[in-house]
Amino acid sequence: MIVTIVNVYVKKEHIEDFIRETALNHKGSIKEPENLRFDVLQSQSDPTNFVLYEAYRSEEGAKAHKETTHYLKWKEAVEKWMDKPRQSNRYNIIAPNNL
Amino acid sequence: MIVTIVNVYVKKEHIEDFIRETALNHKGSIKEPENLRFDVLQSQSDPTNFVLYEAYRSEEGAKAHKETTHYLKWKEAVEKWMDKPRQSNRYNIIAPNNL
Repeated sequence: MIVTIVNVYVKKEHIEDFIRETALNHKGSIKEPENLRFDVLQSQSDPTNFVLYEAYRSEEGAKAHKETTHYLKWKEAVEKWMDKPRQSNRYNIIAPNNL
Repeated sequence: MIVTIVNVYVKKEHIEDFIRETALNHKGSIKEPENLRFDVLQSQSDPTNFVLYEAYRSEEGAKAHKETTHYLKWKEAVEKWMDKPRQSNRYNIIAPNNL
């Protein structure tokens, strides 16, 4: 079981656009068979900073996500609204161990 | 609904100690009435880097966590194993909106 944490900084004038497109990506992602969580967060101290918290049952599941229509549509739509390139970090889940 | 992401760097020789104590904190935390998630992650690229992903129904719930026996016990136990002070960031949950 693995988690990807994606940190995104969005141009102020595109915050609403980003939320709309990312909600669609969320909706598609939670239907993927290997998906466990797909939380979309907005920083309390900096509303231009978003975090995507994506948990998958396997590396294969996380990889398959990148080939879905909803991910590819999201990637293309939000690219131009980002203030800097997004950063991704990968983690193994220590707990819960029953996910 | 709010999320706290805590970033911890642990001294290499105390990785196992940290995992043991944090698993106990996890076990207590998920029983708190306001808790939604308490995921413990270990970085794939740097095994000394851990992330605690804590979601609560309310600010009050997140605050109440800091007064629990399991949190206070964890805090005291792990302090000396950290390589640098831990960092916390607070987020609002955009999606899912049914948590």
